[in-house]
This record gives sequence, C-alpha cells and structure tokens, in this order.
Amino acid sequence: MTKDLKSLAYDHLWLHFTDMESYRRPGVPVVVRGEGARIQDLEGREYLDALSGLLVVQAGHGREELAEAAARQARQLAYFPLWGHAHPQAIELAERLAAHAPGDLNKVFFTTGGSEAVETAWKLAKQYFKLVGKPLKHKILSRTMAYHGTTQGALSITGIPDAKKLFEPLVPGARRIPNTDLYRAAEVTGVAELADDPERFGRWAADQVERVILAEGADTVAAVIVEPVQNSGGCLPPPPGYFRRLREICDAHDVLLVSDEVICAFGRLGTMFGCEKFDYVPDIITCAKGMTSGYSPIGAAIVSDRVAAPFYRRGGYFPHGYTFGGHPVSSAVALANLDLFEREDLLGNVRRNEPVLRGSLEGLLDIPIVGDVRGDGYFYGIELVRDRETREPFTAEERELLLAGPGGLSEQLWESGLYCRADDHGEPVIQLAPPLICGPEEFGFIEQVLRTAITATWKRFESARER
Amino acid sequence: MTKDLKSLAYDHLWLHFTDMESYRRPGVPVVVRGEGARIQDLEGREYLDALSGLLVVQAGHGREELAEAAARQARQLAYFPLWGHAHPQAIELAERLAAHAPGDLNKVFFTTGGSEAVETAWKLAKQYFKLVGKPLKHKILSRTMAYHGTTQGALSITGIPDAKKLFEPLVPGARRIPNTDLYRAAEVTGVAELADDPERFGRWAADQVERVILAEGADTVAAVIVEPVQNSGGCLPPPPGYFRRLREICDAHDVLLVSDEVICAFGRLGTMFGCEKFDYVPDIITCAKGMTSGYSPIGAAIVSDRVAAPFYRRGGYFPHGYTFGGHPVSSAVALANLDLFEREDLLGNVRRNEPVLRGSLEGLLDIPIVGDVRGDGYFYGIELVRDRETREPFTAEERELLLAGPGGLSEQLWESGLYCRADDHGEPVIQLAPPLICGPEEFGFIEQVLRTAITATWKRFESARER
Repeated sequence: MTKDLKSLAYDHLWLHFTDMESYRRPGVPVVVRGEGARIQDLEGREYLDALSGLLVVQAGHGREELAEAAARQARQLAYFPLWGHAHPQAIELAERLAAHAPGDLNKVFFTTGGSEAVETAWKLAKQYFKLVGKPLKHKILSRTMAYHGTTQGALSITGIPDAKKLFEPLVPGARRIPNTDLYRAAEVTGVAELADDPERFGRWAADQVERVILAEGADTVAAVIVEPVQNSGGCLPPPPGYFRRLREICDAHDVLLVSDEVICAFGRLGTMFGCEKFDYVPDIITCAKGMTSGYSPIGAAIVSDRVAAPFYRRGGYFPHGYTFGGHPVSSAVALANLDLFEREDLLGNVRRNEPVLRGSLEGLLDIPIVGDVRGDGYFYGIELVRDRETREPFTAEERELLLAGPGGLSEQLWESGLYCRADDHGEPVIQLAPPLICGPEEFGFIEQVLRTAITATWKRFESARER
Repeated sequence: MTKDLKSLAYDHLWLHFTDMESYRRPGVPVVVRGEGARIQDLEGREYLDALSGLLVVQAGHGREELAEAAARQARQLAYFPLWGHAHPQAIELAERLAAHAPGDLNKVFFTTGGSEAVETAWKLAKQYFKLVGKPLKHKILSRTMAYHGTTQGALSITGIPDAKKLFEPLVPGARRIPNTDLYRAAEVTGVAELADDPERFGRWAADQVERVILAEGADTVAAVIVEPVQNSGGCLPPPPGYFRRLREICDAHDVLLVSDEVICAFGRLGTMFGCEKFDYVPDIITCAKGMTSGYSPIGAAIVSDRVAAPFYRRGGYFPHGYTFGGHPVSSAVALANLDLFEREDLLGNVRRNEPVLRGSLEGLLDIPIVGDVRGDGYFYGIELVRDRETREPFTAEERELLLAGPGGLSEQLWESGLYCRADDHGEPVIQLAPPLICGPEEFGFIEQVLRTAITATWKRFESARER
C-alpha cells in the first residue's frame, strides 16, 4: 500500500513548487495525520510541525471543535455565493475581523486565499483612484525578494525573479523597492556604514520608497504593499522607524499602504494583525492562511471606510469576486477558530513565550556557520553563512551539497523528526513558524535537533573545504 | 435580529459583483439554510435553487455524507501543503480525476478554485513551450464575452470589456476569437446567410481561430481556451463540428487546447467532463466548482502526459503553487462527492431528464419576448428580446426597467420562490443550472414561475410601449 500510494502520487499528483524529477526514486513524503504540533507520515514516523504546515496551522492539528464547526455548517448551508447575497457566517466573520482590525478598516472583501486577496487589493487600488479622479494612479511598489502570490497579478508584485521570468511579460506597473535585510544592509544600500545602524538603515529603506514614487511620478503610483515581517528573502523584520516613515510617505503622496499579512496575521507575531505589533495603520490588510488555522480555505482584503466609500456610492460598482470567496463552511470554521484563540489565549501564549523561542535560537549563534538569527513572535529565520566574520554566503554548489542534496541539512532535519524549511528558493535560511500552542518543551526539541544538524553540516563543510 | 444582521452586512461585508449602493435600503438578501434543491432566507421564505448556488451545488444542499467526510478528514489531517509533500486524499483524488478524464490527461495540479486553475493553465502553457524550445509561444486566445476568472491573469483572458477596463493594462498576450452565439450569428459573422446554418457557422467560428493564430504568428501562440458551453454571453453551446475543427487547428499549429470546465465538468452536461459530451480531447482541463458540489473549495488543472513530460524531466521545475491548493478536507469531500455521483447515478439522472428540461423551457417560446432557448444537460439560457421576428434586443433602459429594477423580472422570480440569474452583466438572458438531483417536478415549478413572470414582463413592456 505504502509503495502503491507513492507511485500513484508520482503518476498523478503534480506537487507545488517541487522538482518532480528529484522525487522519482525516493518517492514523495506522504503526511497522513496531525495531532497538536505533531504530524505523522505514511511509514508511521512522527515529526514536530515547526512550520505550521505552511505558516497556517495556528491552533495545531486535530482540533475537534474546528472539525465539528465545519460539519455543522455543511449540514445547514454548505455553499452559497456572496454575489448579491449574503449568509450569516460571512456577515459575522466580517464584523469580527473589522473589530480586530486597526483604525477604520471596517469593510471585508472575502477571497479563497492569499493570492486572491493580493489581487483584490491591487484591483481595488486601481479602481479607487479612478473613482476619486486620479485615474493615472495604477502602479504598485513591493520589496525585492518578497513573495505575494502566484496568480499573475500577484506574481507581478512578487519580487523573486526566478518565480516570474518564465511567465513574463506580466501585469505592467509593478515596481521594486529595497527589502529590509538588516544583516545584508551594506549590500542592500551599497553603503558600508549602514550595516550596523538599524535606525539609519530603516530610515534609508523607507526613504527609498519615496524616491521610487517620485521617480515614477506620484500621480502614477496607487499603492505600496509590504509584509510586517517579510517571509521570502529569509524572515526580515522591519528596522526601527521603518513603518512610521512609510506611513508618512504614503500619506504625503496619496498612495495606499497595503499590509500583506497572509503570514503575519492571526497571532504569528503575538497580535491579531501584524501591523499592531509594529504600530502602523494600513489602508488595506490582506490576510488568509491562519484565519481558519488552515482547516478550510479563506482569505480577505480588509479595507478602510475611507477607501471603500467611493465604491459604496452610485457608480462605484466593483466588478470583482470569487465563487468560493467567504465560503460558508470556511467562515464558520474561522469563527470557531477566533473563539479558540480567545478561549485558549493563543496571542498571550505567543507573547509570553516568544523570548524563550528567541533565546533558544540565539543560543545556536555559537556554531560557526550560523550567521544571523532574526524574527518576531513565533516566526524566525536562521541564516547560514560560509564565514561569520565577513558574512560571506555559501556558493550555489555548497548550498546544493550542504542543504538541499541527499544527506543535506533538509533531509537531516526531516530524518530527525523536525519539519521546517531549510532550502526555500535556495536560500540558506532555516525558517521556523511553530503552531501558536507551542511552548518551551517544543522549543527545546527544535533547538536540540537544529544544533545537531547544523553542527554536522558545519563539519561536512569543514572537511569538504580541507579536501 | 433580522434587521441587525442585514445592517451588519451592509456595514462590514463587501459583496462580490454587487452594486453596494443599491443594497442600502432594502438590505441584502441573506440565505441561511439549504436542503436538497431548496434554500431558505433569513425571513423563512423558501426558494428553489435553480442556479445550484453559482453552478456549484451538483448534489444538492444538506448532504450529510459530505459534511461527515469534511469532519472526518479535519480530525485526521485538516491541513498540509502539497509543496514537496503529499497527503493520501489528494493522491487518491488525482488518480480518480485522471481515470475520468479523456485521453492521456493524467497529471493533476490542484488549486483552490477556477481563477487559480486558469492561471495555472496559462502559466503552464507559457513554460511548456520554453521547455520544448519554442520560447516565443506565450499568447492565449479566448472567446468574446467569455468569463475565465478575476485574478489578473485570468481576467486578461476574460472577454468581457466591462470586467476589465478599470484594471487595464493587464497581462499582455491575450487575444479574442469569436464566440459561438448561433442566435446572433449574423452579427457575430457579419454575414446574414450564416444565421440559419449551424454547420457553416461552426466551421466559420473555428476557422476564425486559425486566422487569428496566423495573424499573430503561430510561433507566438501557446494556447486556446474555451468552455464546452460558454456561460457568460448567455449560455452558448458549440455549433456542430466546432470542436472537431478546433482540435485540428490546434494540432496543425502546435497550440494547446484548454477546455475550461469550471462550470461544465462534474455532470452539468450529463458527463463527468464537458469535452466528453462534445467528443473532443483537450490538452488541459481546468475545473473547480462542482468537484465538491461546493462543500469545500478546490479546483484543478488536469494536464496530458505529453504536456507534463518536459516538466517531469531535470530542469523542468514549475515554480507555481497555492497554499490551499488540493486542501486535504476539500480533497476528502471531493472523493465523497464522486462516490455520491456513482451511488446515485447523477450523470444518468441528468441524461434521462435533460429532454424534459429542454422541452419545458422550449414551451416558453410562445411568449412573444422569448427569443431563444439554448443549452445542454442541466444548463440553459433563455434570451429575451424586444422583437422576436427581427431578434431586436431590448435597449439598456428597457433592460434596467424590465429586468434589473424594482418590480423587474429578477425581483419577481425571487419573490415567486425561484433563485436563478436574470440580469447578469446586463444580459437579457435568464440562466438556469439546477442541482443534478432535480427532475420533472422541479422543472414543472421552474416553467410555471418563468411563464408567469416573463408574461408579466411582456405585458409591462407592451403597456410601456403604448404610452
């Protein structure tokens, strides 16, 4: 059976972001069960799910109350569209999201996931400025290496060249701004002095946004989209002052600030929305993954009353929607998930324990190839480098040998019972995002497995270098 | 409570494809419950769901076995991504879809819905031709007035100008080919003689595809995407010979034929896939809505082994994916839905009863404003016209007055307990797509409500004309 399922998988199931050729022989890893923070594969081996599936399973696996909420709603009304009609679950969820969202972000446009939420935000920004008499404003700025989705509008915004080049030309009007990789600030800015001055680097990175707006012409720029902590590129928190200055710049040039919280919302940083953690109020929040702890697909663009107003007037019809957006079962599961957040104080759990997670990961800095540990809440990246003094990165061949290849770090971590990311897009950054129910016990396990595996990787690297 | 929920809806829930201004006073219609082919609103009124939600709820509402399948899977493994890993439910579903799909369409790339499936097909076509050494092939052709989705890649393909103009420029490379509106063949072709010659019209419409391919340069065209029966534009079945010729043209110019079956798959036409009904084998099928009868969001691009082959070789990595694509709960529900299709022979039910549906709708042709009745399986459109002899359409003001406005046809149908579409995109086409469990009893009710409401509309039109 085991073998059959794996060969059926190879024959019929096209995996996402996966080199299918490399899966031919060993067979695809098949995950069959989840319970709390643990998952089990087809062979019965257990793993700590230190990535929450894909930064999704906030409340952990196997939650009876979420399964029951899904079944109850499916029996009552499993499907009805939000096209010209409503259902009570989407109404109630919209109200609760609006209550949690900062400022006057009170209007909720539901989608099925993150890419659709980002598409919604950009389309909304384009139409908003036509409605208010600034029809030239249509461009959107996003950071280098940022991931904002794979549908072709969202993909235009995504800042990862290798994810895009096969599909270009894409939607015109997406432009890049610098990311906030403080560890690589000298390279990002081209100015060595900015490497060890977080305040100055934050100011510089935000000021670049204004430079791009002015270079493009402010009357052509509709929006800036940024994650509270940028995921792709290797878990990049904002430098101090970054978001305060970004908000000022957006206000000065009448540019909408979109906070892409597909990853950072719903407790990942210890707050309901990521913007709360860094104290800024965007015009639109895009969110998805954690809203149901992943138990049922849903996403949303949460929009300020100010931006929504012209759409609610005569002639403001927004010709946009998704069949499965705000699905009744997904909405009901999201409501049960929010109940669970409150009942178990998941946000409080993250805030109480995040120093423990940070501390245990920073302990790994004594291994010579650990260059940087960064993150926020329950969302961390560990960057591995060839030389800690110079911050010299591994070469592409070294990354292939040490991280991705057979016997490499990724395989070692998986074999040791730890599921996380170690080689995404070839970045030498280990990413961790455990379920929000985790605490010191799971962090101890994570640290121990990482220490053993990274140390072994360092030794392999040393012996390869000596040969 | 009723009032509260409706005012909360207006305050927080941004509806899809909806003029929010028009919803301010009467309040949004709120649907709370479904059972079989019937739905109930907040005020306790019942309606026949003659649109299957949104061409989605094939097996009807309130199916215990689908609710139970969702809960069972959520308890076992509610979420895991298909990024580099698999789960048994997606594997099994991929195998069953491949077994149902025609020809060598054996590889399944899962998404969350229809827009994402269409995005996947176009991205796949772009990369396929780069992998096989024809890198200039990137364009995609689609029919005028066809709807293929709202994310900006899918929207580029959508052929409805009003859905796109506020968001342009979109993804370059999408071109239009004629639709197959036989009732308007004289206008579509510009040749009066083609109006009453379905074979010649079919040949003409397909031949136009070749003309566009040649005009663009065949070495720049990657794909043609068409629905088996085109939904938007008013339910347009293919004329005889259309698909046979289209397949020949695609083969002659090495262009991929994508069958967009987001609406037509899963029994809508009495076959598992729509291409079966019209006897053609595409290179890619895109599908979504009916796969779970709407109980949980999922979609897919089903790809031929021939097209998949270069992606499964070294260097063929497809950098594409969706967090919620092939969701474990959605996959489990889809499997239970396919079981239900077999156990209750839903395809057989459609094939046995489709002549009854056609007959009862064609009976309405005795009302002077009923111009055309067309469709296939359980999927029909009734076009209303100003003058049946000349096929002269209603003016925009007449459509607003008679169909969309207060007391108009849409409102009448809803008030009479029939949920269907009567004014989508301002088209004077009533669209019907009842759940596949329906039969003569429901069709009798549909006919009776339509007869009363359309007759009343005709009389209003007559008396307005006389004044």
